[in-house]
Amino acid sequence: MSDQYVVGVDYGTLSGRAVVVRVSDGAELGTGVHEYPHAVLETSLPNGRPLPPDWALQVPEDYREVLRVAVPAAIAAAGIDPADVVGIATDFTACTMVPCLADGTPLVETGYDDRPHAYVKLWKHHAAQPQADRINRLAEERAEPWLPRYGGLISSEWEFAKGLELFEEDRDLYDRMEHWVEAADWIVWQLSGEYVRNACTAGYKGQRQDGAYPTTDYLEALAPGFGSFVEDKLEHRIGQLGEQAGRLTEEAAAWTGLPAGIAVAVGNVDAHVTAPAAQAVRAGQMVAIMGTSTCHVMSAEVLREVPGMCGVVDGGIIAGSWGYEAGQSGVGDIFGWFTKFGVPASYAEAAAEAGESLHEHLTRLSAVQEVGEHGLVALDWHSGNRSVLVDHELSGLVIGQTLATRPEDVYRALLEATAFGTRVIVETFRDSGIPVEEFIVAGGLAKNALLMQTYADVTRLPLSIIDSEQGPALGSAIHAAVAAGCYPDVPTAAKSMGKVRPSVYLPDETRAQAYDRLFEVYLDLHDHFGRRTTTMRRLKALRRDAVARRTSEGAEGETR
Amino acid sequence: MSDQYVVGVDYGTLSGRAVVVRVSDGAELGTGVHEYPHAVLETSLPNGRPLPPDWALQVPEDYREVLRVAVPAAIAAAGIDPADVVGIATDFTACTMVPCLADGTPLVETGYDDRPHAYVKLWKHHAAQPQADRINRLAEERAEPWLPRYGGLISSEWEFAKGLELFEEDRDLYDRMEHWVEAADWIVWQLSGEYVRNACTAGYKGQRQDGAYPTTDYLEALAPGFGSFVEDKLEHRIGQLGEQAGRLTEEAAAWTGLPAGIAVAVGNVDAHVTAPAAQAVRAGQMVAIMGTSTCHVMSAEVLREVPGMCGVVDGGIIAGSWGYEAGQSGVGDIFGWFTKFGVPASYAEAAAEAGESLHEHLTRLSAVQEVGEHGLVALDWHSGNRSVLVDHELSGLVIGQTLATRPEDVYRALLEATAFGTRVIVETFRDSGIPVEEFIVAGGLAKNALLMQTYADVTRLPLSIIDSEQGPALGSAIHAAVAAGCYPDVPTAAKSMGKVRPSVYLPDETRAQAYDRLFEVYLDLHDHFGRRTTTMRRLKALRRDAVARRTSEGAEGETR
Repeated sequence: MSDQYVVGVDYGTLSGRAVVVRVSDGAELGTGVHEYPHAVLETSLPNGRPLPPDWALQVPEDYREVLRVAVPAAIAAAGIDPADVVGIATDFTACTMVPCLADGTPLVETGYDDRPHAYVKLWKHHAAQPQADRINRLAEERAEPWLPRYGGLISSEWEFAKGLELFEEDRDLYDRMEHWVEAADWIVWQLSGEYVRNACTAGYKGQRQDGAYPTTDYLEALAPGFGSFVEDKLEHRIGQLGEQAGRLTEEAAAWTGLPAGIAVAVGNVDAHVTAPAAQAVRAGQMVAIMGTSTCHVMSAEVLREVPGMCGVVDGGIIAGSWGYEAGQSGVGDIFGWFTKFGVPASYAEAAAEAGESLHEHLTRLSAVQEVGEHGLVALDWHSGNRSVLVDHELSGLVIGQTLATRPEDVYRALLEATAFGTRVIVETFRDSGIPVEEFIVAGGLAKNALLMQTYADVTRLPLSIIDSEQGPALGSAIHAAVAAGCYPDVPTAAKSMGKVRPSVYLPDETRAQAYDRLFEVYLDLHDHFGRRTTTMRRLKALRRDAVARRTSEGAEGETR
Repeated sequence: MSDQYVVGVDYGTLSGRAVVVRVSDGAELGTGVHEYPHAVLETSLPNGRPLPPDWALQVPEDYREVLRVAVPAAIAAAGIDPADVVGIATDFTACTMVPCLADGTPLVETGYDDRPHAYVKLWKHHAAQPQADRINRLAEERAEPWLPRYGGLISSEWEFAKGLELFEEDRDLYDRMEHWVEAADWIVWQLSGEYVRNACTAGYKGQRQDGAYPTTDYLEALAPGFGSFVEDKLEHRIGQLGEQAGRLTEEAAAWTGLPAGIAVAVGNVDAHVTAPAAQAVRAGQMVAIMGTSTCHVMSAEVLREVPGMCGVVDGGIIAGSWGYEAGQSGVGDIFGWFTKFGVPASYAEAAAEAGESLHEHLTRLSAVQEVGEHGLVALDWHSGNRSVLVDHELSGLVIGQTLATRPEDVYRALLEATAFGTRVIVETFRDSGIPVEEFIVAGGLAKNALLMQTYADVTRLPLSIIDSEQGPALGSAIHAAVAAGCYPDVPTAAKSMGKVRPSVYLPDETRAQAYDRLFEVYLDLHDHFGRRTTTMRRLKALRRDAVARRTSEGAEGETR
């Protein structure tokens, strides 16, 4: 295996990244990155047609370009002979949906590039909230059995909400569409010519549980005519993670420069695929992919219904285990927002003088504080709360400010707030019979030592760090190696190819006790604003009303 | 009267300001300002001896220097003949206390300049909080009749708390002290040779109600030996506002360049003296002196016990009326703090390019918003809450933040929070039978048009603005004219000499209704954090514990 290689391709929100990995030991030999030319369409289509608020579209050709550009670049950077590549695998953002014809051609490529609903709906397209609300209401009324598998609420980002949106808002396109395809599976279809629905997104985003989807009866009650949605648009062969979906087509071989006929693995999701890259394949090992937001994934042998989790799926992370997912909607983007808008020029100058980024500067200033010294607690809900409250109408809060409060105080309070949010998730899993024993961090935030130590102290868990800069692509490579038959299964491959630095941060009991008292305050605020009052919802409603008044008044605004 | 003049001298926290005013029409002809050489002693005595936290001292000789420097400067600037000056009056910060011998000599000038307790204790000396807590607890237990006259709580800033602090912490000095004198009265004593306690501070700060002070019995129960405090140190002839305290001594004539023998008015307080300067002498006219903090003063014919007010005093503002006082601990200083610490370099650059201050820049950006558009509500308690919660353990809060929240949004939310705080005060007065019909603003914040319009909209009151840059000094000048016999009483003098621009801002009903909905959210937060939970107190306690841990650990802090 020491001269066998695999390629893992990670499709993110703005770019695709290919990595060449050695099968024998997971060594990462070369990388290629390609940014999507159209990035995210949020305000208008390429032809200038404006989009409503909360839309987020992409262009499927951009994904093919990653295969044509990033994969050959990675091979070249690795300096290997492409003939030694034995497999390729991909992971994708999710739930990102491509409306297609029967042969996988995206609708947008069939003369509909003026129709917003013909484009790829990116995971963060949030315009289907009204549909999601109805889906949840009806499922709760009817006590649909799948609802508790999603913590009690399904998201506007997922297959059914986006599908219903398409059904109701562009019925003509809905009728022409022959498959409603996860981008994770669409790209595999492009590589292999085979359409296989991966078990991960089919479960987490497609509400497939115990081999079945929501019933015709339920769907018809949701919207007359929508009852055949599963049968007509969704249902298809399921592939387990690590299985081979098919073999590289001649066309895809020409795009990538790889040998035709090599193994193409079943599709996967960027967060979930990272678990084996960090050797986290056992029960109790929670992997947190921490970037602008955080996704938590963990396997377990048992099925439990955890309130407010994103979902539990059979084979959702590792085939044969139950895969649990939870998340925090805002983490790094909150720190970034604060650094951009909440820190004065004097700090920017001091940081520049010290040769530090603003993040480094604020971290250094706040790291010397005792726990609780800033007198603040924040709620990390600037983008709403994914787990365990599942409420995107929530918002951020900072309490405890005095005239002595400095930017480093607020910065630290925001770091801590995300750690408290993680502790709520960890404790909810524990209380539901899914104990967490190790916290393994992947993603860009792992390099902030203060943040990592805070998570260890707040959760009282040993904290390990993935030992790769490109966890998802490495995870995909592991799946490629399994699909190519180099290893019998993903856990075995992960043992050889995954990389982790175990227990880099250990909890300090003195700080942990001090954090317990701050966490009590956080929990009070969490429950007050997240469960017991409608204060934050009212503020969002007032904001929407105000924006509507402005719109109805034209661009004038108030005159004073 | 057209060639008669009076001098008003306003003693602020950092400087004294003298203004020469024409008796006939209140024209302000010349000004002189002198900064106190010792400013405020907060960290050490002039000889370097360190002071504990929360101390704030001053040096009495600095006050005399104002008479020697600022008064002649004002006369010179006015270009008048000092022989035409018929009276002088002063106003002072309060409660600012001077421990004296029987002849008015400050203890600090009798060889005790190494003893912290011998100095003037400035209003913002806050180290007597433990004493204030005991005073309140015991008064509540015994249902002392004066307690409701102060909204249910007396302040650590006042005469009894500071007096008890002196009694308990430097008994030797306490025993040597023969009078515990308000600086407002001490400066009049310096000018006239007469010690007269003005009715205003005797009532608001000295707990004098219905002609009596707290009883010997109560004081002895507070601290054995303290029972004779009133009799020994405090009790003295009372002078009504506008009365003559005495005549200018030869010595003070030499300092000021004014004719010996002219009228010297009874002392007064900077906030209260401003009411007649704004012609606000009738019931229903609330004057708000808005600067770093806000002081509200209003007269009424009737006595009512308003929960959480600072106090109600017979003749406390206008002799013959009941004077009501309330306050907000933080207003302009919150805006200043945010501008200093919460606004990024890009905004500072844009402001500089537009030739605006940061305040002007943020005001302009936020003024175009619809009410509620920012989606935020703040609590304006960064320095605690004076009225109506009377709790300095409270702190600031901002709720509703998203990643789209900009500095101008938070700035506007902070402006609005102070307006909501004012509305709580106005409604509490109204609900207690003291209706407010007009809101009259003095002080530096009157020049922010957005802020003023917001106050009018939020309170639904017509908002007038004092038409003088030096309200307190003009108010003192009015009192000097009355003391000199030029007018029969302060209201009559105010009609000729006071200056106000009436109803500059009128409430807009559409905005007022939108603010009603934001105010509901504010009230929910106000009552939740101010009355129903201890969250903010717990945060302050955690902060104190953390600081104590740091101190006990030395300067090391956490090592990471």
